[in-house]
Amino acid sequence: MEEVRVGIVGLGNVGSGTLAILAENAEQVALKLGFRLRVVAVCSRSVGSKAIPAALGPVFKTTDWREVVTHPEVQIVAELVGGTTVAAEILNAAIENRKSIVTANKELMASCGPEIWERAIQAGINLAMEASVCGGIPIHAVLREGISGDRVMALYGILNGTCNYILTEMEKREVPLEEMLAEAQRLGYAEADPSADIDGFDARSKLVLLAALAFGEKLTPSDIFMEGIRRITPVDFRYARQLQHTIRLICGARKIPEGVVLSVRPALIPVSTILAGVQGPYNAVWVKGKYGEDTFYYGWGAGALPTGVAVVSDLMRVAREIRSGSPERVSPFAHERLGENQPVSITLQRSAYYLRFRVDDRPGIIHKLAGILTNKNISVEAVLQEPCDNRRDLPFVITVEQTSEQSIREAVAEMARLDFMREAPLALPMETAL
Amino acid sequence: MEEVRVGIVGLGNVGSGTLAILAENAEQVALKLGFRLRVVAVCSRSVGSKAIPAALGPVFKTTDWREVVTHPEVQIVAELVGGTTVAAEILNAAIENRKSIVTANKELMASCGPEIWERAIQAGINLAMEASVCGGIPIHAVLREGISGDRVMALYGILNGTCNYILTEMEKREVPLEEMLAEAQRLGYAEADPSADIDGFDARSKLVLLAALAFGEKLTPSDIFMEGIRRITPVDFRYARQLQHTIRLICGARKIPEGVVLSVRPALIPVSTILAGVQGPYNAVWVKGKYGEDTFYYGWGAGALPTGVAVVSDLMRVAREIRSGSPERVSPFAHERLGENQPVSITLQRSAYYLRFRVDDRPGIIHKLAGILTNKNISVEAVLQEPCDNRRDLPFVITVEQTSEQSIREAVAEMARLDFMREAPLALPMETAL
Repeated sequence: MEEVRVGIVGLGNVGSGTLAILAENAEQVALKLGFRLRVVAVCSRSVGSKAIPAALGPVFKTTDWREVVTHPEVQIVAELVGGTTVAAEILNAAIENRKSIVTANKELMASCGPEIWERAIQAGINLAMEASVCGGIPIHAVLREGISGDRVMALYGILNGTCNYILTEMEKREVPLEEMLAEAQRLGYAEADPSADIDGFDARSKLVLLAALAFGEKLTPSDIFMEGIRRITPVDFRYARQLQHTIRLICGARKIPEGVVLSVRPALIPVSTILAGVQGPYNAVWVKGKYGEDTFYYGWGAGALPTGVAVVSDLMRVAREIRSGSPERVSPFAHERLGENQPVSITLQRSAYYLRFRVDDRPGIIHKLAGILTNKNISVEAVLQEPCDNRRDLPFVITVEQTSEQSIREAVAEMARLDFMREAPLALPMETAL
Repeated sequence: MEEVRVGIVGLGNVGSGTLAILAENAEQVALKLGFRLRVVAVCSRSVGSKAIPAALGPVFKTTDWREVVTHPEVQIVAELVGGTTVAAEILNAAIENRKSIVTANKELMASCGPEIWERAIQAGINLAMEASVCGGIPIHAVLREGISGDRVMALYGILNGTCNYILTEMEKREVPLEEMLAEAQRLGYAEADPSADIDGFDARSKLVLLAALAFGEKLTPSDIFMEGIRRITPVDFRYARQLQHTIRLICGARKIPEGVVLSVRPALIPVSTILAGVQGPYNAVWVKGKYGEDTFYYGWGAGALPTGVAVVSDLMRVAREIRSGSPERVSPFAHERLGENQPVSITLQRSAYYLRFRVDDRPGIIHKLAGILTNKNISVEAVLQEPCDNRRDLPFVITVEQTSEQSIREAVAEMARLDFMREAPLALPMETAL
């Protein structure tokens, strides 16, 4: 039986998972492909201390990635080091050496994906990046192959498992964010510096890549409005529940007449929607197509083995293409040149909103707030107030009917200046259309 | 710009949806492919009365499918007629004429898929069948590409939208099956003869195909235990809710040490699981992989446009392969020849069970039933009884801890003979492992 030969650069979490699957699942992979995948070279800064599964047979080990990329037997380089400096060098060198590439690198593909893809096409090699976003969820295969005949109108994702774990547990146990965050850190779900997760940076870089694939436009993080989950409190979940909603960090990309609106922000979603069923540290992506309407994808967003499955599946895909002599021909970023999908400002978005206030209670508060909303042409839907003993710091909620983000921002800015406000009002969109 | 040329056989629901998408989405399809897909021939028994979208340009129309299959310009034949007689002739003729094939034919691929695939490989053509199962859910792309590096350990599907609509509405509105069925027929969700849906035949033929793809074995309907939803009543939903479960028609394929157990049957599933969030006439598939663990896929299981997306995506896939000169090389049915995935009897399956009785109430009933269970070494978990005025026809429930299907069948057969039983006990597995 013939074979296609692979070099792995990076033996961290994902690299080790990839090697474990390639070793243990080798027979089934060969039956699916009709030939073997063989790992001939691996690189890690600490390659001497890494256990290489014996089932892989003899493997060349090095601490210098150049020795993998230039290895005469290697046909596919799997870049599993992450980051954007060395990784970019590895990919460039692989392209120069006419090696096909499988990458798990979200940052690099989000920032330079279109350019790297164009260079790969010119070099006549193959490139795959399923593992770069949403770990074990095969969302790239879905967008590129499974529903390629459709036209994406909206995409909603739960793309940060740490935030989703914190929010679902906060909801169940009614404990504040700080406490849940400390627990997530103890469990290893959250970093010592949690900002990348809870302020939305990680989710945003995933959305850059997913939305670029779904809408075929080159995007950058600055195209995406971002707001983290730091202001969400247990009281918000209680009010949301009264409204038959829950709260999740939603990564949204939706087509409106002016273009595509992109955001990462906490939002109220109906409890009856399948997105609300995403509990704990899972990821999910909901795609709304013009023709196929709703499809929904769910799984582990990270982890050595789920992400390893994505890398191995990509290696299989690329190996098939190599055997067919079929290099990449069209970039997955380049399908929308009809000019309809340019990113536009979040202020154009229309939505119902949940406004949560903390006030020093006194007569006339509702009257003042309603006056500001009326001046902006915003209609009040409901006013909710839980029983509360502390009249000096009273939380209550106003929901409003569909309006523009621009109007709600102007109203909130005006409200924030009122002397009875303990803090600026919290405004969350209500994704009632889901 | 060059093009790949398509012939469509069958202009029913799916065929019309396919033509509509090919006409309206032509620009985006061309941008994704780098070349155009052009429909050059269509066939329908009533082709004269069919509206062909003008945007497609000149199209040869015929009532004789042979004229499409032998049309000199046609490179891909889309077989959208359904059934197993004419459709099989069309596929055979296409293979003989070295035309690639896209098919939406569940019955034919479930019964002859492996043979057709082998013949296509020998003929050096391409074959795709995303539309043959789960309509708009790209489950074939997922299994064949997206998670191909994984090894499937279990697959659970909600594969019949009519049953799912009936069950979710029965749960919400507490009306009996007959009433919901009549409504589903009025809405066009159910046929005049509902047996294919509610007795499980439709779901079973979908599971034959899905499980064959997931486990790489040739399967037939007789390998699958089947039980429909006719015996489910609103009282079962009330009892299920007390147990924090709901009831769905679950298509299951799971690996056990002896092989793969296959079933289509109503089962209790925890309300906290994402499968329970599948409401109304949607389909869903949950795959449990050895490495990637849980992934879940959801969408419309039928419909002209969702299924049309699957056909168009397949046409794009096959067109890419044709342009690369890359015919099919390995059958998607043939990856598991390790002998581990043979279908085995349902009686080997182990599960917790829900037993619902209708009895003519008298002293000693629980004692008698518990005695039978004890004799079979089955442990009672809980006994539930709602208040009920009709002592002559009293519904109540016993749940039991994990045991074998064989043991529960023996116990139920013995219980059915007791003189206070109004009907044979209803035994449903409880899918607590989901």
